[in-house]
Amino acid sequence: MHAALPGFHDVLDAAARIAVHAHATPVLRSRTLDEAADARLHFKAEHLQRAGAFKFRGACNAVFALDEATAARGVVTHSSGNHGAALALAARLRGIPCHVVVPQGAVRAKLAAIAHYGAVLHPCAPTIAAREAACARVQAETGASVVHPYTDARVIAGQGTAALELLREVPELDAVVVPLGGGGLAAGTALALRALAPDCALFLAEPEGAADGARSFARGALDHDFVPETVCDGLRGTLGAPNFALLRAADARVLTVSDARTVEAMRLLWTRTKQLVEPSSAIALAAVLAHPALFAGRRVGIVLSGGNVDLDALPALFALAGNAA
Amino acid sequence: MHAALPGFHDVLDAAARIAVHAHATPVLRSRTLDEAADARLHFKAEHLQRAGAFKFRGACNAVFALDEATAARGVVTHSSGNHGAALALAARLRGIPCHVVVPQGAVRAKLAAIAHYGAVLHPCAPTIAAREAACARVQAETGASVVHPYTDARVIAGQGTAALELLREVPELDAVVVPLGGGGLAAGTALALRALAPDCALFLAEPEGAADGARSFARGALDHDFVPETVCDGLRGTLGAPNFALLRAADARVLTVSDARTVEAMRLLWTRTKQLVEPSSAIALAAVLAHPALFAGRRVGIVLSGGNVDLDALPALFALAGNAA
Repeated sequence: MHAALPGFHDVLDAAARIAVHAHATPVLRSRTLDEAADARLHFKAEHLQRAGAFKFRGACNAVFALDEATAARGVVTHSSGNHGAALALAARLRGIPCHVVVPQGAVRAKLAAIAHYGAVLHPCAPTIAAREAACARVQAETGASVVHPYTDARVIAGQGTAALELLREVPELDAVVVPLGGGGLAAGTALALRALAPDCALFLAEPEGAADGARSFARGALDHDFVPETVCDGLRGTLGAPNFALLRAADARVLTVSDARTVEAMRLLWTRTKQLVEPSSAIALAAVLAHPALFAGRRVGIVLSGGNVDLDALPALFALAGNAA
Repeated sequence: MHAALPGFHDVLDAAARIAVHAHATPVLRSRTLDEAADARLHFKAEHLQRAGAFKFRGACNAVFALDEATAARGVVTHSSGNHGAALALAARLRGIPCHVVVPQGAVRAKLAAIAHYGAVLHPCAPTIAAREAACARVQAETGASVVHPYTDARVIAGQGTAALELLREVPELDAVVVPLGGGGLAAGTALALRALAPDCALFLAEPEGAADGARSFARGALDHDFVPETVCDGLRGTLGAPNFALLRAADARVLTVSDARTVEAMRLLWTRTKQLVEPSSAIALAAVLAHPALFAGRRVGIVLSGGNVDLDALPALFALAGNAA
């Protein structure tokens, strides 16, 4: 993990570095959703990114930023979600080993995706301590570089390339809304936004059941004292320190959203745009629909962060929102 | 309904007529699905068409082909599915009345879509006789023109514009696969294919539980003696007479597919391409995956016909395929 905070030049470097590997995803529009929000919505379609989420941008930047000798020893992380799969794919593209520490009980489909890209899975007990111990052990044994899912400066810079592309395609946005979990996407977006669109407001959509970000902003200091309880499995992590610093500097504002509203927004996105986005993505649209006073009549960029839905969990998800959508 | 069979010139006329209203949908690729099929697959994304299905092409062509006086009296059809919604939208765009006869028990979400576009709903008993009687009554009372969902020559010509666009974007296809229900899309595709790519094979994917097409081809005459039993709600209709004539002339071949394979293919499309297509669309990919000897190593066009999924019915759908995908 790099200690220094990344800057906008790191986002530009990342864009150049990942260009041959990552997709420049499209920006989607929807007449019906514009009507529903009474706003002009521009959806950056990162669910169409390789490995199904924006995470590939940061992972790819981190992997290809390594010098030859370091890269040859491989990379390691502890994420059973989209970052694990993204890192595995990036490592495969560079032809280096990838180790992913996975807690017992992780979603089978996600583990299969990580294994599909050729990473070595290291099972561990489902606690933070066990994960970190397993990660340290793999690092000691192999010399692999740790790539943290969201505090790594190269990862943050990589995630910023999504907003960079969005702002180049739609320069005149009044606001951008991104999901908030650990803050990798959010902090990267902040870097791009403040450099290219200083007057554009930055909103962070966070689940009510994992609202450490909202509390940290309210206190002015990180507050990690919570147990996440949300269907947004990509947003259960705790806000990182460098991420928090970058987001405060960018004057970002957190909007918390209930899971019921998130699932309603997900159904709306599915039925209206036919795009299979995951709850952790739909939360950004849910935040817009829940705050008409903030967004009505405005040009709003929304990052659809990923599309890795656990189809077997759908009935339970839908039960949350009833037939509301 | 027009009695004469449409020709390729009607497809070209339709393309010009609907150009300002219909979307020119993209052609999508997927690395993973190419690997799964050992073929180069080109997906024509009609689930991204207006009203969520290719049906809008034919309905739009039929509505805008009417002369002013006839159009002013409106249009009527009996389809509670995608054609009903497509016709309602086309009529709204032209500013004329639309009547849709809907059988009791039709899917609520589909009825809501039809009403959303401003059509007048006419409920009737769920039998063919009751539908036709209600349709005739509306016609007598209002002077509205009947637009049949798939035997109408203007509808067939309109549906052919999807393949027209596909072939213009990807001229060198070895085979095209489309779903087969009443045969509107299939017959329109046949017109475009035989004019632009005479050596390209045409395959029709039909549910095993509604295989009147396969039996009709085997007999050499229409065989409508069946009760449809399939999750492909868009493909339960019986093959139309003009459709059958055009398809035989084009040397089309029917491939029947089990619902379990269709649902597996649907899950594969969802998870790999993040595109929410309905079972009646996924059947075309299922047919390709089920017949590697026919498609391996070839360039295959697949029409993803629609994306109007009944989300509340998903648990039952998934149960069909287990965790196979």
